[in-house]
Amino acid sequence: MLGSTHGTFTTDPRRAHVVACGELPPSAVHGKAGRPLTADDLDVSGRPLHADVPDLDRFFRPESVAVIGASDAEGRPGAGITRQLIAWAERVGARLHPVHPTRQAVFGIPCSPSVAELPEQVDLAVLLVADPLPVIEQLAEEKVRFAVAFASGFAETGEKGAAAQARLAAAVRSSGLRLLGPNTNLNAFEKFRDDLEGPAIALITQSGHQGRPLFSLQELGIRLSHWAPTGNEADLETADFISYFAERPEVGAIACYVEGLKDGRAFLLAADRAARQGVPVVAVKVGRTEAGARTAASHTGKLTGADAVVDAAMRQFGVIRVDGLDELQDTSALLARARAPLADGVAVYSISGGTGAHFADLATEAGLTLPTLHDAKQAELHQWIPEYLNVANPVDNGGHPVGDWRGRRIIDAILDDPQVGVLICPITGPFPPMSDKLAQDLVDAAEETEKLVCVVWGSPVGTEDAYRRTLLGSSRVATFRTFANCITAVRAHLDHHRFTTGYRSPFDEAPRTPSPSFRKARALMRPGQQLSEHAAKQLLRAYGIRVPREQLVTSAAAAVRAAGLVGYPVVMKASGPQLAHKTELGLVKVGLTSASQVRDAYRELTDIARYEDAPLDGVLVCQMVERGVEMVVGVTQDPLFGPTVTVGLGGVLVEVLQDAAVRVPPFGEDQAKAMLRELRGRALLDGVRGAAPCDVDALVEVVLRVQRMALELGGELAELDINPLMVLPRGQGAVALDALAVCR
Amino acid sequence: MLGSTHGTFTTDPRRAHVVACGELPPSAVHGKAGRPLTADDLDVSGRPLHADVPDLDRFFRPESVAVIGASDAEGRPGAGITRQLIAWAERVGARLHPVHPTRQAVFGIPCSPSVAELPEQVDLAVLLVADPLPVIEQLAEEKVRFAVAFASGFAETGEKGAAAQARLAAAVRSSGLRLLGPNTNLNAFEKFRDDLEGPAIALITQSGHQGRPLFSLQELGIRLSHWAPTGNEADLETADFISYFAERPEVGAIACYVEGLKDGRAFLLAADRAARQGVPVVAVKVGRTEAGARTAASHTGKLTGADAVVDAAMRQFGVIRVDGLDELQDTSALLARARAPLADGVAVYSISGGTGAHFADLATEAGLTLPTLHDAKQAELHQWIPEYLNVANPVDNGGHPVGDWRGRRIIDAILDDPQVGVLICPITGPFPPMSDKLAQDLVDAAEETEKLVCVVWGSPVGTEDAYRRTLLGSSRVATFRTFANCITAVRAHLDHHRFTTGYRSPFDEAPRTPSPSFRKARALMRPGQQLSEHAAKQLLRAYGIRVPREQLVTSAAAAVRAAGLVGYPVVMKASGPQLAHKTELGLVKVGLTSASQVRDAYRELTDIARYEDAPLDGVLVCQMVERGVEMVVGVTQDPLFGPTVTVGLGGVLVEVLQDAAVRVPPFGEDQAKAMLRELRGRALLDGVRGAAPCDVDALVEVVLRVQRMALELGGELAELDINPLMVLPRGQGAVALDALAVCR
Repeated sequence: MLGSTHGTFTTDPRRAHVVACGELPPSAVHGKAGRPLTADDLDVSGRPLHADVPDLDRFFRPESVAVIGASDAEGRPGAGITRQLIAWAERVGARLHPVHPTRQAVFGIPCSPSVAELPEQVDLAVLLVADPLPVIEQLAEEKVRFAVAFASGFAETGEKGAAAQARLAAAVRSSGLRLLGPNTNLNAFEKFRDDLEGPAIALITQSGHQGRPLFSLQELGIRLSHWAPTGNEADLETADFISYFAERPEVGAIACYVEGLKDGRAFLLAADRAARQGVPVVAVKVGRTEAGARTAASHTGKLTGADAVVDAAMRQFGVIRVDGLDELQDTSALLARARAPLADGVAVYSISGGTGAHFADLATEAGLTLPTLHDAKQAELHQWIPEYLNVANPVDNGGHPVGDWRGRRIIDAILDDPQVGVLICPITGPFPPMSDKLAQDLVDAAEETEKLVCVVWGSPVGTEDAYRRTLLGSSRVATFRTFANCITAVRAHLDHHRFTTGYRSPFDEAPRTPSPSFRKARALMRPGQQLSEHAAKQLLRAYGIRVPREQLVTSAAAAVRAAGLVGYPVVMKASGPQLAHKTELGLVKVGLTSASQVRDAYRELTDIARYEDAPLDGVLVCQMVERGVEMVVGVTQDPLFGPTVTVGLGGVLVEVLQDAAVRVPPFGEDQAKAMLRELRGRALLDGVRGAAPCDVDALVEVVLRVQRMALELGGELAELDINPLMVLPRGQGAVALDALAVCR
Repeated sequence: MLGSTHGTFTTDPRRAHVVACGELPPSAVHGKAGRPLTADDLDVSGRPLHADVPDLDRFFRPESVAVIGASDAEGRPGAGITRQLIAWAERVGARLHPVHPTRQAVFGIPCSPSVAELPEQVDLAVLLVADPLPVIEQLAEEKVRFAVAFASGFAETGEKGAAAQARLAAAVRSSGLRLLGPNTNLNAFEKFRDDLEGPAIALITQSGHQGRPLFSLQELGIRLSHWAPTGNEADLETADFISYFAERPEVGAIACYVEGLKDGRAFLLAADRAARQGVPVVAVKVGRTEAGARTAASHTGKLTGADAVVDAAMRQFGVIRVDGLDELQDTSALLARARAPLADGVAVYSISGGTGAHFADLATEAGLTLPTLHDAKQAELHQWIPEYLNVANPVDNGGHPVGDWRGRRIIDAILDDPQVGVLICPITGPFPPMSDKLAQDLVDAAEETEKLVCVVWGSPVGTEDAYRRTLLGSSRVATFRTFANCITAVRAHLDHHRFTTGYRSPFDEAPRTPSPSFRKARALMRPGQQLSEHAAKQLLRAYGIRVPREQLVTSAAAAVRAAGLVGYPVVMKASGPQLAHKTELGLVKVGLTSASQVRDAYRELTDIARYEDAPLDGVLVCQMVERGVEMVVGVTQDPLFGPTVTVGLGGVLVEVLQDAAVRVPPFGEDQAKAMLRELRGRALLDGVRGAAPCDVDALVEVVLRVQRMALELGGELAELDINPLMVLPRGQGAVALDALAVCR
């Protein structure tokens, strides 16, 4: 329902990098910047291992610009745009050349009749023409490096437009130039305030209107360095700008408004690049309500929707996802300007005990840490604050002292505490005789500390001097309007630094060549088919995942012999290529303890299968594995990100509780462990009611082996579902009791 | 950690109305307004069945006021307060009489030397004295109806202050007057704007500073009628003001900032009164992080923390709980002014497809319904909106038409759709040539419709004319600054009307007299003890809750006989007064199929009990009940609300998943069913993997019987825990397989 309005679609299967090992997608073989990739640049799934960063310096700061279709005919939209482009070119010091087939001059600037007749080679061509396609080839011949296409009527309008966009994209690919648009606008060429200091926000949006509030932040004193309105992303996409901005020294944070990601892998590589650089990426990604229910044979496939995968992918690579544009503004403004935190502790300073308690409650609930100040620090504060007020943190001053230096002393004393990395002062109600001085003291203190000082200005009016002039006038104080947004931003700030400090890129450790398992596994694949349980288990064995002792038999007598070899008690299950959800069909018999029970079970299972018209490749006689915790581990193909790996509570509970965590490969052992921590039912693994703790290491190992399989088999493995994986007590491993695999 | 700063405590056990049937707490026997309560006013637990509404007309609009301790000595705080009180008295037309032992006049107004010498009987006395206690008795003698005590130094400062407050409260109780405070302030006597129209917000806060932003809403055109700063609530409390405001015709919504509730029952009765009147109550209640982990023998006691109980109680009685003061402002402002919705459907109208899609995504995620507009309506809209733009809802106009009447037509056409009850227009970025006209069209349209029109003004600047003048100037348009707050408020509005439309007060149906079960049950209670499993099950039987066939035996031979009578296979369990968590101790043996197994089990259980030093009253030989879903049902005493009833997933999962729902009695069958819908694992009850659906009706019946038991036994039953309650397939009932009961 919530399709993009900018011609990119998160669920368009044509865009998915779902390829088997050795079958490379075009974008993997040719780097988009034109450099051919070598084997070293690709992982075992044939996908690139590092972002291809376009050099966009000349895009944002061209020396010369051509405006194709420039106009000064009043009343025509092209005239207004041309005028704005001329002003922009002047500001950035670029020479501007209008191109028009018949006019001599536009706004007094001499016109060239065609691209071929431009007076010099230009860096950037802005296309105001309705059909940019024919112009692209001319531009390529003239070695123009960048083009911007404003025209709409492409993928955003439906199938026909999408086809036109595909043609445009193909022309761009073969031309060597880079294109922004189509269906974009003037946002990149806006007038930015140049009087603001400090690190800036670089903005990337797929919708101009949605980026406007962030641009307006400049009116509140927040510096903005760039705005990339990516539009339909026929060529340049959000990921390209993230990679580029991550290396610009003036950029402190990258803010993105994303409707649909064009290429999941490219996005992750860009996020990886930003994480390596320590530059935070904050993103609104529309699509919370994207259909979670997919049609899948496996349980894994139903456990996580498309948006949960986006969410996980972003978290894996440190992208801070927020929902509202107000959160995008407040979080990226804070992250752009705040220095690395010196401590994780948050101190709350308030002129009202109620305000302090309320803020502390919400902050703690959100996961911030409010350390109790040490006795010595409390004694220090009580020099200036009456004894009966609580200064343990929150620090309640009972009214900020305004007549002398004491107010400032209190603030400095809190900031001086080594436990405290962040001071937050919520000023709920403005009371000028007190709050004006408080605001000034906070601004002054912030100038002299490396620590983060935040203020929440709670008045809904927002025209007060202390807010507009004092607080917004400081680039060292982060000012918010709501408790919630302050808490969200501070948490993102602390999380971001924790994340980047410990960051090891999983792309550095991603497998580049197939493992010995791959050959065995591939021989088992049956394109277009669902494998039988027996075959699926052989696939697992190929990757070193333990399965129970079992034999596939085709007669009652063979079943009895197998049971003897496997060892009583046994489990018997029908095994066939089309069978899923065997328990519901009565196709599983457990706890068989004698030859006669085995014989009866064989008969009953084959009877049911016949009745259900389910072809069997036989009946499995399996070792019975009883003691352990049932989990599910699986692989699902995500249209945007390719194979994903899921782990969750298994057995009967898988459908009931949908308690699962998902990751996009490549990921390391740390992420596999983090998946388990995300499970609501994780306590089951630690042992409850006297049960022994489970072999969590073995579970993690299975997750990593499944990831390897997913990467090596790529798109050939449409779905995999180990359910249950019985995780045995610590030291005893984990056994895949049932498995389902669907080949593409 | 997060205690109240205003001397009320949610977890103060002294305040809890936890009484057994027949033992009435003082506040139940005497209505606080002084009228003696009759048996008809009380439920079976001895607690009142309806709110005792104080008549506060003369508090807010007195004809005469005394200011005890009035002063005009410049520089003393009393002088500033006196001046403000004089101004207020003038505004409300009250005669003001300063009282001071030595002064002749204060600010030119003649002084009385004492309360006894006041020139007339006054309605309200404002106490500016440090110790209000001695004055209270004098006021009572003069038949003063209301007093306000500003003095601090009471419960907010610790134990000594709490004792002083208790003395003050006792004096007030015996005096017959009603007191606001101590530790309150001037907020009730502020200057309210009287030029604003329409229904108003009435504000109740325990902290003046925290109420300030709501008061400031008047600067944005939102009418406020009252502000009750309840302070320490020695007498008048939040509940009293809710009850009073709910019946004032000018009040459209009641906004509360609560740090600690003084009396849970009184709060619920007040909320019930507001629900009956259809007046919405919106509340911030500090305490999200209140210790969730309690020390309790039962699982039930650990399943829900104190805050979850507050949350449930509020939801039961329709109180809309929010977290931030900004949400409190935006939600109560909308609810005060919006008329009853004509339809639940929300239409989103936007000048940018991106904005519409983003808003719709978040709104849908939050549970709002965006109906697809019918083809005819879409065709109508396409008269004025280009065909390629999506108008199905969200309606993307591609830019609001500003040159003519078309913009207004579009808005009217959407509002005219019978599916649509709410129109929301998110204006993310202001673009005056367009957004000014759009804002005006929305304001004009809102004047002519009964439907709700909301605008989100997304610019962070907020000084734009279209926002300040046009939108805030209209009392018919609800204007927000963030998507999230708009969505929260609209959802609260629709939920509130759904709730009040179907509201039946559970107090009307609460039991007033004990059931026949009560006498049997009470005989089983052992004060201060934990009952044995056997005795606890008899308690359940007394209330008609099914338990397995079982016999308590004290010898191996008796065990074998009992097994024969109960029927094999049997379960055997040690039964003793101190035993909990028997499974972990190995004190449960299941699936015993022969006399020799029973004999062995008897020996083993008694051996373990001896080893664990656990006295037994015997060994239970029980019928084995296998097929069903294990649930837990229990009773816990909440310090604020008294007995609460919990239902959750049982068996091993109870500790792992903490999947439970709680309710505060009295509640009806509808709430018992709603509890089950709240469970994440509710699908288990419907039958998964081919299992039969459970007897949900029987489960609901058990919950209601447990509620009855909790009400009748009151505080005598400290804890009850049925774990597991085996819920059998539909039509077969539910059986309490194990039970734990702790008597107070």
